[in-house]
Amino acid sequence: MEYASVLRQHIEELVTLSDDAFEIVLNAFVPVSLSKKEYLIKVGQKVGAEYFVVRGCLKTAAYDDAGKEHIIQFAMENWWVSDYPAYAKHGNAEMDVQALEDCFVLSLSMEARAALARQVPEMLTFYERKALSGYVATQKRVLSLLRNSAKEKYELLLDQYPQLFQRVPKKMIAHYLGVSRETLSRLHKYD
Amino acid sequence: MEYASVLRQHIEELVTLSDDAFEIVLNAFVPVSLSKKEYLIKVGQKVGAEYFVVRGCLKTAAYDDAGKEHIIQFAMENWWVSDYPAYAKHGNAEMDVQALEDCFVLSLSMEARAALARQVPEMLTFYERKALSGYVATQKRVLSLLRNSAKEKYELLLDQYPQLFQRVPKKMIAHYLGVSRETLSRLHKYD
Repeated sequence: MEYASVLRQHIEELVTLSDDAFEIVLNAFVPVSLSKKEYLIKVGQKVGAEYFVVRGCLKTAAYDDAGKEHIIQFAMENWWVSDYPAYAKHGNAEMDVQALEDCFVLSLSMEARAALARQVPEMLTFYERKALSGYVATQKRVLSLLRNSAKEKYELLLDQYPQLFQRVPKKMIAHYLGVSRETLSRLHKYD
Repeated sequence: MEYASVLRQHIEELVTLSDDAFEIVLNAFVPVSLSKKEYLIKVGQKVGAEYFVVRGCLKTAAYDDAGKEHIIQFAMENWWVSDYPAYAKHGNAEMDVQALEDCFVLSLSMEARAALARQVPEMLTFYERKALSGYVATQKRVLSLLRNSAKEKYELLLDQYPQLFQRVPKKMIAHYLGVSRETLSRLHKYD
């Protein structure tokens, strides 16, 4: 499918756009191709855009003082990704966003986003619903981190995103769930 | 301060409203008083509203199979609270929202919220910014749960919300941080 259709279908799950309005929306996005392992955002860089994933898989990761990686988010087709804490305060990235496969994403700058909200009022409704569903998904993740055992967290993820396990190294799944690689290998045996 | 002024000041941190527009906004909210320990939302109830805290402190909590409490959120003055996952899908609560002090909150039903977005377009911008900042705050919490030691999580919370430690029992702080009460007592000695 052409990327314009992918984007339109994604937005029209929440709001309806006229052809003219979608034309304005489409022109606000800039296509970006990334090779596997390439960075979309690197720690320390100014963050001024968010990205809609048309094809591929990326991770958002932060590091602790010992250099250990912690994965905040995986992003696949139809997901949005950025370092949102940095984005929201117009600041510098504290997380890396890196391609785990060859990727094709659409970049929406902060300025283009604000202009769209003025030109196409439906987009403000779209942003609001996306932000609320991001908030809800992240609250569920907090709950799962607090409440679930390693085994439960693993099964929940496998259940929600089975394809993640085909596309992402096991080590990264462990860094997302906050469990050790050994624990994950033990769980993986019982799939 | 009268609650109308508190609400107006809160909204006008993000958008500006005319007196007429604020009158419409104010009329959409329903004041609710709660005594300490009273529930705003109980597990199993239909969730159709969110709440702005004018005065008091509440907690949002879920339980595991063993009945252990896990605290998703504390809400104090100027915060919004609900069971947002249930709210977003028009479903039944999987979390309790309970007053930890005598509270005064303003209830905004889902229908009133949608009507406001149509009648006062600035409110849609307000909702969008609030949702984005909720998303960002919750992502930071995920990162802290993954990355920080018990000691670091404790210090971060003490640093961000010092008054929480005066207003909330230590046991609940432990249920929020995902650490044992014993660990918390040990940390608390070194304040």
